[in-house]
Amino acid sequence: MDVKVSIFGFGNVGRATARVLLKKAGFIQRRYGLEFKVVSITDRSGTLWMPEGIDLREALTVKESLGRISAWTNDYELYDMGPKEAVRDVGADIVVDVTNEVNAHEWHLLALREGKAVVTSNKPPLAFHYGKLTKEAERRGLPYLFEATVMAGTPIITLLRDGLLGDSVERIEAVLNATTTFILSEMERGATFEAALKRAQKLGIAERDPRGDILGIDAGYKATILHCIAFEPMTFDNAEVSGIVEVTEGKIKRAGKSGKTVRLVATVEKGTVTVEPREVPLGSPLAVESHENAAVIKTDLLGELVIKGAGAGLKETASGVVSDVVKASLSLSG
Amino acid sequence: MDVKVSIFGFGNVGRATARVLLKKAGFIQRRYGLEFKVVSITDRSGTLWMPEGIDLREALTVKESLGRISAWTNDYELYDMGPKEAVRDVGADIVVDVTNEVNAHEWHLLALREGKAVVTSNKPPLAFHYGKLTKEAERRGLPYLFEATVMAGTPIITLLRDGLLGDSVERIEAVLNATTTFILSEMERGATFEAALKRAQKLGIAERDPRGDILGIDAGYKATILHCIAFEPMTFDNAEVSGIVEVTEGKIKRAGKSGKTVRLVATVEKGTVTVEPREVPLGSPLAVESHENAAVIKTDLLGELVIKGAGAGLKETASGVVSDVVKASLSLSG
Repeated sequence: MDVKVSIFGFGNVGRATARVLLKKAGFIQRRYGLEFKVVSITDRSGTLWMPEGIDLREALTVKESLGRISAWTNDYELYDMGPKEAVRDVGADIVVDVTNEVNAHEWHLLALREGKAVVTSNKPPLAFHYGKLTKEAERRGLPYLFEATVMAGTPIITLLRDGLLGDSVERIEAVLNATTTFILSEMERGATFEAALKRAQKLGIAERDPRGDILGIDAGYKATILHCIAFEPMTFDNAEVSGIVEVTEGKIKRAGKSGKTVRLVATVEKGTVTVEPREVPLGSPLAVESHENAAVIKTDLLGELVIKGAGAGLKETASGVVSDVVKASLSLSG
Repeated sequence: MDVKVSIFGFGNVGRATARVLLKKAGFIQRRYGLEFKVVSITDRSGTLWMPEGIDLREALTVKESLGRISAWTNDYELYDMGPKEAVRDVGADIVVDVTNEVNAHEWHLLALREGKAVVTSNKPPLAFHYGKLTKEAERRGLPYLFEATVMAGTPIITLLRDGLLGDSVERIEAVLNATTTFILSEMERGATFEAALKRAQKLGIAERDPRGDILGIDAGYKATILHCIAFEPMTFDNAEVSGIVEVTEGKIKRAGKSGKTVRLVATVEKGTVTVEPREVPLGSPLAVESHENAAVIKTDLLGELVIKGAGAGLKETASGVVSDVVKASLSLSG
């Protein structure tokens, strides 16, 4: 089956998604009988639209050598369309949002109303409008999928949405942000907060504006999304979030002396989401290193369940996006 | 929505399932809008059939005080039907197999041909007939679900079937049998194999005939099922399985001295399933204790993913069965 896909956002995650779609095309065709045709790519400069399908290899080359999709001057039609117009006008089956746009929920809703499935790695739409978006999708019987918003491609969302259906979740404790883990690990090795942050930025682990990570906002978005799935819709406005800027070198040393390590831990219980630096025992599932994330899910029937895996990284995030694109396609065709 | 369920097997797992269905009826009604009506229960003594729905509380009392369903003398209709007849004649939407019957695949197939969904915790049908069963279910568009066959309710099967759809699994390493973990742990504390086995039997952790566990057959069934999902159908006949009977106290002591512990580890790669006692480093995900199971799943995009949770226990196994009954119902109604 041919599936028409529109990609919104052609930054790191968008391009990684395109690369995985290229690399795994044969696998996906053999395993699921699906052939993806990317019919449009929208970045900040405009929309490349090609009903017969864009050559992703060429699109990657243009973007990577010239910086924007609109630099493409021959062969393809370029339009001065933003996301809303592209969602409406391009005849896609699946809209893939791999932007960071805070107000993308508006065109997610539009896509659903136009009968299109939505796959996204973009957190704010979910962290602020979960109830509205999932209700609209349900009413229209359309997939609205967002595996890559939490723990990259590590399938914690599939696990909570498609599994454990008879269990009542009682609590989730999780380390959901890899940048803060990196900084805290560097501080354990003796670096100051400032030096650790600088190193993270140099390595591309932290962004130039690191506030989303170090103030706990990114972890808070993710924890809010987990709350929405495990319990009921809530918004990030009700999350209690503190970051790691006040974690001192002394605090980290003291933790180390008692066999513990400091991590930015999210705690999700019915009605409350808290993100704060906490001491966790070395050897516990939350004492993650590097780009690993981990969650301990406590339920009434099963007791404690641990899921641990990559929580950052480009192909690791694309893993979640592409898994959802496959899932959406199977659901549309089924 | 009312969903009619036939339960086959009313031993420990069957009764735990009934107890969870009772206890979580309100939750399931509120969350999914589903109401389960158990219209028949089949044990070795016969079939209790009640189109209006059996009172599970009474059924549990009868079975637990009198030992068999057929001891019920008033109110209900009792039939001298085996599974095949009950599958055919009772008008259920979902057939739940919580027996250990080796040849149950015959009536699983019959159920699918009769248009009924199948949920099972019974391993041999999957370990020997995976391809046939899942193909039949797919052809008829019916759910064939078996979460509880591997790691009890810990949703490794949901994770592999409904998640990671763009990833290629490269290898799974897992501890899938809790009885052998118990025995090996006891031996670490100085017990002989025989004493440890006896203790496990006394506590109800090992069965009176413990061969399925200690020879690695149970773990082999489970590993074979994981192979079928992650790669392609194969049967247990092609698995290479050795158990823990040849693990000496000396071997365990030597492992301990080098910071390791011996566990019965299944390794699943494309075309091969191996189960054998192996030394694993303390602190590694496979160094599980008690009734915990763990799996390390390696994929091309995501790298290493760990899932760890209860791998045995009655309500823990019922968790998987009931989750699948909910999932099957949502799929039938969707």
